[in-house]
Amino acid sequence: MGFANQWYVPREGLELHPDGGVTSAQGFSAAGVHAGFNPDPAKLDLALVVADEPCAAAAVFTQNVFCAPPVAVSREHLERTGGVARAVVANSKVANAATGDEGLRRAEAAAAIVADVLGCPADEVLVASTGVIGVHLPLERFAGGVPQAAARLSADDAAARDAASAIMTTDTRPKECAVSFDGAAFGFPGERFTVGAMAKGSGMIMPNMATMIAVLTTDAPLAPPDLAAALKAAVAESFNKVTVDSDTSTNDTCILLASGAAARSAGPADFAQGTPGHAAFSAALAAVCTALARAMAADGEGATRLVTVTVTGAANPEEADLAARTVANSPLVKTAIYGKDANWGRIAAALGRSGARFAKEGVDIRIMGIPVCEGGMALDFDEAEALRRFERPEIAIDADLGAGSASATVWTCDLTHDYVTINGDYRS
Amino acid sequence: MGFANQWYVPREGLELHPDGGVTSAQGFSAAGVHAGFNPDPAKLDLALVVADEPCAAAAVFTQNVFCAPPVAVSREHLERTGGVARAVVANSKVANAATGDEGLRRAEAAAAIVADVLGCPADEVLVASTGVIGVHLPLERFAGGVPQAAARLSADDAAARDAASAIMTTDTRPKECAVSFDGAAFGFPGERFTVGAMAKGSGMIMPNMATMIAVLTTDAPLAPPDLAAALKAAVAESFNKVTVDSDTSTNDTCILLASGAAARSAGPADFAQGTPGHAAFSAALAAVCTALARAMAADGEGATRLVTVTVTGAANPEEADLAARTVANSPLVKTAIYGKDANWGRIAAALGRSGARFAKEGVDIRIMGIPVCEGGMALDFDEAEALRRFERPEIAIDADLGAGSASATVWTCDLTHDYVTINGDYRS
Repeated sequence: MGFANQWYVPREGLELHPDGGVTSAQGFSAAGVHAGFNPDPAKLDLALVVADEPCAAAAVFTQNVFCAPPVAVSREHLERTGGVARAVVANSKVANAATGDEGLRRAEAAAAIVADVLGCPADEVLVASTGVIGVHLPLERFAGGVPQAAARLSADDAAARDAASAIMTTDTRPKECAVSFDGAAFGFPGERFTVGAMAKGSGMIMPNMATMIAVLTTDAPLAPPDLAAALKAAVAESFNKVTVDSDTSTNDTCILLASGAAARSAGPADFAQGTPGHAAFSAALAAVCTALARAMAADGEGATRLVTVTVTGAANPEEADLAARTVANSPLVKTAIYGKDANWGRIAAALGRSGARFAKEGVDIRIMGIPVCEGGMALDFDEAEALRRFERPEIAIDADLGAGSASATVWTCDLTHDYVTINGDYRS
Repeated sequence: MGFANQWYVPREGLELHPDGGVTSAQGFSAAGVHAGFNPDPAKLDLALVVADEPCAAAAVFTQNVFCAPPVAVSREHLERTGGVARAVVANSKVANAATGDEGLRRAEAAAAIVADVLGCPADEVLVASTGVIGVHLPLERFAGGVPQAAARLSADDAAARDAASAIMTTDTRPKECAVSFDGAAFGFPGERFTVGAMAKGSGMIMPNMATMIAVLTTDAPLAPPDLAAALKAAVAESFNKVTVDSDTSTNDTCILLASGAAARSAGPADFAQGTPGHAAFSAALAAVCTALARAMAADGEGATRLVTVTVTGAANPEEADLAARTVANSPLVKTAIYGKDANWGRIAAALGRSGARFAKEGVDIRIMGIPVCEGGMALDFDEAEALRRFERPEIAIDADLGAGSASATVWTCDLTHDYVTINGDYRS
């Protein structure tokens, strides 16, 4: 069973594919090869995801001012085609960020190499890069690697796994997820649709619009605007709620392709915004994105635990997010969790400086279900029981601000010696 | 020579006292004793600073919603007296935060104990606490420690050093600074005035109005409103520009007392806002606060280096501060400095997500004077020379956004294995 499935939250009506990934939806194949971006020949470093036919596409990208050339190129390709794509190519090790006009030229050239091999227009190829900033993309790696990858394209789970492995940087595990749902709920019983995905993300993670790299596929027949709307909503509540270290990458890219290959009677109109079909699809998409987002936090650089921070009772959704995010980004909170210390004073201090409006007398805090603070004051609690609960892989922090009815959940991880080792040693 | 003097930036017209501290200004005495807040009998844990006579006082406090009872009590005392104080008492180990009405009662009781011993109104005693959140202040420690401290009050440098030591938590060095200036510049040649101070701060440090605890004294004869104006301005450009870990404490307190004891001919009118006397005093105060702020960053939890981030060319001062602060709080930047890695891509990424408005094509970045990025693009630079410069105790990061003429400087430190050890192990 894939790593991300461990973090999957079951939802009514959705069936999880235990070994599923980016090729689980019909109409897609993938490959991951060693093209030589990584000096270690055992490491896959180039991923290719290809649709059998040109298909509907949508994407969200980083909001970092230093957004990288591959982001600019993919955005422009989608604009030019009006939301049609045939393939996504992604490499690790070199981010092609802060590389100026030459970086743009090379990102375009990488797309052109893929287009040549597949026999499609270059505009139908989307590109994504992750790795070191300020280094030019070695085009010869694409020239060598892309034909190799094209020759190995397959819809097998193993091929999807290779693609997911090829986009890893400091990730310790490939991240994949796939779910299916039945069309019965919206008038097409027996017609099953699938959403599959792969993602990577480990450091420089506080996506603002999208994660570092995620490629999602579906065989439901959505039109580009409906696809874009579903993606935007799903990302807002999944990838955009992850923070490993508060650092938003320059390369965040999240792409969703829809082949429509599973549709027999249902058509794009049955998945238009506002229809039950769009709602069913959106729920499946959200489930996949959430599993991957949680997996990303759980596999944050140096992490030993997933930390889920939920703030309730906020005055509005923005302040709920702000309060949860401030707790999730607090180095003091994150080191306390690493140290298995139910140090709720640090949580209170983070809430207090977050900018969210509340009175301290109204605040209740629980750590892993144990009430530690009520009405802004310390509660006696069983420290031994808290220590036992710290052995869980997921640590829940719940804070009620007592100031309203808005809530937000943000996922992060603990801050460990290994985070410092990884980032003090590696130019990533 | 005191630790903070290492971080003192010389200014024209100011004379540094090599061993000076909170008693360097005339009219003040101090003591630091072991009162038993700390189980280790070798550790001083209660500081007392006393003015010979009731004197003008001003203070700035944390803006954290979870502000602690001692903050509330000191603020109220200053309001009631209209800016008059006789003494400051501070303890380490117990923050008396998140302790509700009982916490307020105990903070008042601590002030009353000092007032009894000194024979002054309780309103003229200001209190400050630092340490663990959510624990009640043990009043018996004040009952025992305050008479002891009162018996040892002295204007000696050694007594000032004891007081500075008694407020330390995870600080590794006491932090003191004192400078003198001559009245010649504003018509009182030969009349010398002094500003002295002690401060503490090591973790949970991103002051927003004041640092964890700083007590400043002067023998210049300022009236409370003029004193408050000078303090507010000095803090904005010193303590409020420090960030160790982005966490604003619940207890930040910065108190300034003015005895007027050095004045022979000069009076409060000669130090009123807008006068050359106020300007001269403000410059001395800023120099002391800046040295302490830089010392605080240099002695941040686990720190091996002071990091000075200067952003120029910003559209306005707020965005300059935002950009500098985002770089200074970036775990990726801070671990790279620990790893002696001139990884400017992480600096660019932090600037890009800061919210400051600029075009990436206009950005220049230097690390320790070495140009590493120009016009938003990578420059080749001498990595060996960069590695040599990383041996310096102060690491300068300079970024020009090319978007305007505003600038800001923020001080921080690197993020190290020791930071994780200290905060993963210690309930502070």
